[in-house]
Amino acid sequence: MTAAAATRPGTEATTGARRGVTLWLSGLPSAGKTTLALAVADELRRRGTDVEVLDGDEVRTHLSAGLGFSRADRDTHVDRIGFVAELLARHGVTVLVPVIAPYERARELVRRHHAEHGTRMLLVHLSTSFEVCAGRDVKGLYAKALRGEIRSMTGVDDPYEVPPTPDLRLDTGRLSLDQSVAALLDLVAGDADGAAAAAPAGTVAHPPAHTSADGEPS
Amino acid sequence: MTAAAATRPGTEATTGARRGVTLWLSGLPSAGKTTLALAVADELRRRGTDVEVLDGDEVRTHLSAGLGFSRADRDTHVDRIGFVAELLARHGVTVLVPVIAPYERARELVRRHHAEHGTRMLLVHLSTSFEVCAGRDVKGLYAKALRGEIRSMTGVDDPYEVPPTPDLRLDTGRLSLDQSVAALLDLVAGDADGAAAAAPAGTVAHPPAHTSADGEPS
Repeated sequence: MTAAAATRPGTEATTGARRGVTLWLSGLPSAGKTTLALAVADELRRRGTDVEVLDGDEVRTHLSAGLGFSRADRDTHVDRIGFVAELLARHGVTVLVPVIAPYERARELVRRHHAEHGTRMLLVHLSTSFEVCAGRDVKGLYAKALRGEIRSMTGVDDPYEVPPTPDLRLDTGRLSLDQSVAALLDLVAGDADGAAAAAPAGTVAHPPAHTSADGEPS
Repeated sequence: MTAAAATRPGTEATTGARRGVTLWLSGLPSAGKTTLALAVADELRRRGTDVEVLDGDEVRTHLSAGLGFSRADRDTHVDRIGFVAELLARHGVTVLVPVIAPYERARELVRRHHAEHGTRMLLVHLSTSFEVCAGRDVKGLYAKALRGEIRSMTGVDDPYEVPPTPDLRLDTGRLSLDQSVAALLDLVAGDADGAAAAAPAGTVAHPPAHTSADGEPS
């Protein structure tokens, strides 16, 4: 992949015709979603791409204050973030969304919403195992959940539905951060075919209909 | 004002440096907010500007489902729309927001949020009188509210706090649609001073600190 392929300067314009995309990183807590999103965002910005990471306290405060951990509330959270991501991507922004999104139906609705607007969306499943995630336990939540001190912890006592057909699976327990970043940059550039062929163990590219449609096999 | 002034091609870039702005149209129901926003959006698109209008069923469905007409719910609605508008404007989009926003404090919080991110926001007060708005009664809601059949109608039994220091006031009861559109285009282009000087009765430009700062008196 080249920097030119990543930023697609030929399609850039001032009228919103810049080619945006939503790149959703779904996976268990501590799978590395935010770390990976921030690293990919840094690299894309370095290449001149207009990037936004939809995560963090500000997003939660403004979009999802008052929501809890019920299925309905989790689905509402995913729907709102998906709505905002699509709006930004429609206007040419590369939007990284490091959000658990545990339910397939809600993910599918976000995907459909993007399709309805002709906006690109890529779903990446961080398939990092429960054992690795619980071992990392970045926020100490697995320990608390396993001791029964907190409830509704995804992966412990709340479900995580594994995406059946993501655009890419990445096992961050087997890949280095650099390898994961490279795989995502390839995916965004529409090089998923090539990434799968050359990818290290831990990367699985699924039938990339979007890249075939681009007519850009690497 | 020229088309070049409106699109500011010199500041356009592919890295999000395009100069976005949130243009919030506040006013009573039937003041003409949506009509004006759509007309301005059409003209801006014709000039090659990347535009979004945050209004309509889709925005309400995804961002504000379940919210009612209490002050807290109205403020939450304004906060969410303001958050999304700022995100888009930060990435170079001209965002039109034809939303009542009846409370000064909520409007002020949106303005502060924009300022914190260094994003331009312009507040326009459609000062069209109650009598004119109720006479138009586009959705038949004034009649119902005045007959007591519905409650919490802004301007009837729910407050509308007149913005004390908007960037522009427009009385759509005294201005034609074309005149109002022209005034808004001038404002967005940073020509508010000139617009006020040459404006027909019904337009009041307030001290436009943003335009002086631009160093672009017309």
